[in-house]
Amino acid sequence: MEQIAPRTVKPPKLNRAQPGVYLIGAGPGAADLITVRGARILAQADIVFYDALIDLSMLDWCPSTKLVQVGKRCGSHSSSQHFINKQLVDAASKYSVVVRLKGGDPLIFGRAQEEIDALEKASVRYEIVPGITTALAASAELKQPPTTRELSRTLTLTTLPGRCAHEDHKTAIYYMARDQLSEVAANLIAEGYSVDTAVCLMESVSLPTQRSFGCTLDELRFGDVHHYFLDKQPVVVMVGEVYRKKLQTLTPLIESQNPLNLLQVAS
Amino acid sequence: MEQIAPRTVKPPKLNRAQPGVYLIGAGPGAADLITVRGARILAQADIVFYDALIDLSMLDWCPSTKLVQVGKRCGSHSSSQHFINKQLVDAASKYSVVVRLKGGDPLIFGRAQEEIDALEKASVRYEIVPGITTALAASAELKQPPTTRELSRTLTLTTLPGRCAHEDHKTAIYYMARDQLSEVAANLIAEGYSVDTAVCLMESVSLPTQRSFGCTLDELRFGDVHHYFLDKQPVVVMVGEVYRKKLQTLTPLIESQNPLNLLQVAS
Repeated sequence: MEQIAPRTVKPPKLNRAQPGVYLIGAGPGAADLITVRGARILAQADIVFYDALIDLSMLDWCPSTKLVQVGKRCGSHSSSQHFINKQLVDAASKYSVVVRLKGGDPLIFGRAQEEIDALEKASVRYEIVPGITTALAASAELKQPPTTRELSRTLTLTTLPGRCAHEDHKTAIYYMARDQLSEVAANLIAEGYSVDTAVCLMESVSLPTQRSFGCTLDELRFGDVHHYFLDKQPVVVMVGEVYRKKLQTLTPLIESQNPLNLLQVAS
Repeated sequence: MEQIAPRTVKPPKLNRAQPGVYLIGAGPGAADLITVRGARILAQADIVFYDALIDLSMLDWCPSTKLVQVGKRCGSHSSSQHFINKQLVDAASKYSVVVRLKGGDPLIFGRAQEEIDALEKASVRYEIVPGITTALAASAELKQPPTTRELSRTLTLTTLPGRCAHEDHKTAIYYMARDQLSEVAANLIAEGYSVDTAVCLMESVSLPTQRSFGCTLDELRFGDVHHYFLDKQPVVVMVGEVYRKKLQTLTPLIESQNPLNLLQVAS
C-alpha cells in the first residue's frame, strides 16, 4: 500500500469568534490534539494566556498573537491563580478575543472554577472549549481502553492519593500524582487491592519525549519517583486489571532511569 | 468591541497519514469538536466506517470518501460488533487509509477493545486518535467543572446504574443511562446519597438540538424518561454537589416535555 496525498481540510463552518474570553483545552501536548474549534479560536485571538505546561508548538496556531505565559509548574515560581483571574478580566476590557489556553481539558483538575467565578463576577462573556484530557490521550497512546465490558465498566479520574473506594477492580487514573506514587500504591493496597494489580505509568503524554512503563502496585509502593522520571514532567498513573496484558509489552518500571541521571553518570 | 476577521489556521505539521486503520474519536457531535489530527486523517481517508450516532456534518471533513454506516443505535437494527470487526480487517487489505469514526472518545465505553483485538489478530497496523468524551463536552456546555478543590476531587465515569461507592459526594457522570434514570437515582439514594443531591441532565450534547435540565435525585427517581427526552437521543447524567448552584439556572426537569409529545398534542 502506498501513502496517499493529503487533501486539504475544508472546515464545514468557519465562524468568526465572538468577542469574549475563551477557556480552551489545549489537550495533552501535541499541537494537533487540540480541537478544530480550539485551533480556530486561537488563530483569531488577540491575546493568549497560556500554561507553563503547554508544549510551545501549540502556539504555532497563533503566530502573531500577543502571548502571556501564566500558570503553575510544579516546584517553580508561578503566577498565582488570583493574578491570572485578574489578568483575564482586565484583558477582556482591552482586547476582543481573549484566550486562556489550559493543558488537557480546562475543566478537569484545572482550577477553572476560580477563573469562571472571576469572569462571571465581572460580567465578562466567556465560553469553554473542551480538550483531550491526559487520561484519554494516554489510553490512546497505550492502545488500551480504561474500561472493558468484562473487566471494568467504571473509570475514576482523581488527584487524591487517598482512599478511592474501588470496587470490582474498577480502573483508576491518577493525575498530578508523580510525587505521591508510593502513597497511591500503599493506599490502594490498604483498601484491598492485590499487590499484583497492574499499573501503567506514562510521562509527557503525546510529546516526542513520551515514555511508558509498567509495574505492579507492590513495585510502585517501594519505588522512588526521582529515580524514574524527569523533574517537572507530568506523569499519569493508570491502575486496574484492564492493564494486565499490557505489562508484557511495556518496559518494566524498575528498568527505568531518569534520563538526566544517566547523563550525569555519563559525564 | 468589534468582531475580528478570522485568520487562516496554519497547521504546524501537515503529515501524510500512514497506511492503516485509524480509530478516531469524533467527539460529542459538533463537527468542530473533533481534534485537528482526527480531521486531517479523515480528510485523507479512503473509506470511513462511522457510527449511527455521529452527526452527519462531521462527514464534511471527507466529502469524497467512501462512507459506510455501522454501529449501534439504541432500539434499532444495527451492525453487530463482530461484523464491524470483520469489515475493518477486510478494508485494511483493500484500502490504504481506513477510518473507524466513533462517537466521543474511541476508548470510553465504545467497545474498542473488540476492534483492537481483531486488528491485532490480523496484524493490521492501527492507531488511536482520542476524542472529546461526552462528559467533558457536557461540562463545557454547562460551564461547570465536574471537580472543584472544595467539593469533589474525584470524577467517576460509568455505564453502571448499580452501586458506585461514592464517598464525600464525589461527582459521577453516567453514560448510556437514559433508560435507567430511575434506577441510577434509586441506587445512589440507597447508597446514602441525599435525596436532595443535585443532578444535571443533557440531551444531544453540543448539537443544535441540545437541551439541559436540572433536578434532584428524588425527582429523578420518580421521573419517566419517555416523558422528558426524545427517543434514541443520548442523555448524559451528571450527579454531585458541584452541580448545586447550576440548578438555579437550569430548566427544572419536571418542566421538560419530549418535543415529539408536544408535536403530537399540537397536531
